[in-house]
Amino acid sequence: MKSDRIGELDKQYRINLINSLVGYKSLHLLGTAGTDGITNLCMVSSVFHLGSNPPLLGLVMRPERDHNDTLRNISETGQYTLNNVLPEWYMQAHQTSASYPSRVSEFDTCGFTKQYVSGFKAPFVGQSTVRVALEPREFIDMEINGTTIIVGEIVHLLIEDKLICSDGTVDHCKAKTMTVAGLDNYCLPQPVGRLAYAKPGIEPHLYTNNNKYVI
Amino acid sequence: MKSDRIGELDKQYRINLINSLVGYKSLHLLGTAGTDGITNLCMVSSVFHLGSNPPLLGLVMRPERDHNDTLRNISETGQYTLNNVLPEWYMQAHQTSASYPSRVSEFDTCGFTKQYVSGFKAPFVGQSTVRVALEPREFIDMEINGTTIIVGEIVHLLIEDKLICSDGTVDHCKAKTMTVAGLDNYCLPQPVGRLAYAKPGIEPHLYTNNNKYVI
Repeated sequence: MKSDRIGELDKQYRINLINSLVGYKSLHLLGTAGTDGITNLCMVSSVFHLGSNPPLLGLVMRPERDHNDTLRNISETGQYTLNNVLPEWYMQAHQTSASYPSRVSEFDTCGFTKQYVSGFKAPFVGQSTVRVALEPREFIDMEINGTTIIVGEIVHLLIEDKLICSDGTVDHCKAKTMTVAGLDNYCLPQPVGRLAYAKPGIEPHLYTNNNKYVI
Repeated sequence: MKSDRIGELDKQYRINLINSLVGYKSLHLLGTAGTDGITNLCMVSSVFHLGSNPPLLGLVMRPERDHNDTLRNISETGQYTLNNVLPEWYMQAHQTSASYPSRVSEFDTCGFTKQYVSGFKAPFVGQSTVRVALEPREFIDMEINGTTIIVGEIVHLLIEDKLICSDGTVDHCKAKTMTVAGLDNYCLPQPVGRLAYAKPGIEPHLYTNNNKYVI
């Protein structure tokens, strides 16, 4: 299918097609608090790893609308959290994407527990198992389509020790982290294999740690 | 764990931890050709959806090094492809991340078939089932860590019709698309549920199309 045909597609068909092209996306509940103290929670599926030193994550916010409390809260307070989504309550998490008025907190309406760490005002999701607190470092306004890429530095991690492997890797199978394809296809991944660092001339093979296979 | 402790972690432990924080990532083989005609193929796990009108995807390239043929090829030729990864050959796909010299094509060394569409010089991966051709629209140099965010517009799609649902959504289960957590944990997602568009005051529920459940 060429670009001129993509432009001619029915609007909703094109949105579904283009949104689902990239495959499985990372899935998070993004928590903020406004300067008025009202908390906000929304689903995002555009978080990407930008670098580990300093520890940076990026995410995309759609063009600012009346209801886009999240972007305003991040700009005004300089704090936000990203929280993973679990199968036991992914329907409630999806419900945060409904268009609630600004004065309504999706934490309360959709049944999520607010959790806090000392000195940080943005709320974490109590039900999540992998939780990250960030401070924005850059807001990149994309002229091409009006979106904003927010680059944030990780300032806190809230993860149970048992979910982190001895080499630092988070075990997302054990953490029950979900993923999403397209706008609304929620999935739970199964491990296929963890591979060793690739080197020229050496056949690809499973990663071993002290001669034990690690998945 | 607070930011000052993150900074003190062992380097490899920190890389594993920060890379795996975001959960499951989209996984692609990125295909390019140089002005000298030598093709290049590398794995990327940072592709994100930026918008559907115009159809835009973003991805992160690490700081330019001697071997970073991909970024140079995209800059010089203005063309690249993203191709999904399947369980039958994910080990070969991982092997493209080995540090081969510039004159070596990972297509040949790692056993991938080059496929072309008329008028587009960057090669697709013959073995993939969901393939996208892009032209770069913006290169964003990130001063904060030396990475480059490339924003590209989709100009071609190569997907079998049977992998696209009637509403435009790509069926990644049927396409056998894989995902990756961290640097090297390859996974295959299983569907949990496709949910209907969320509205305030209406309980979240499964998506139905003509009263049939659609996963």
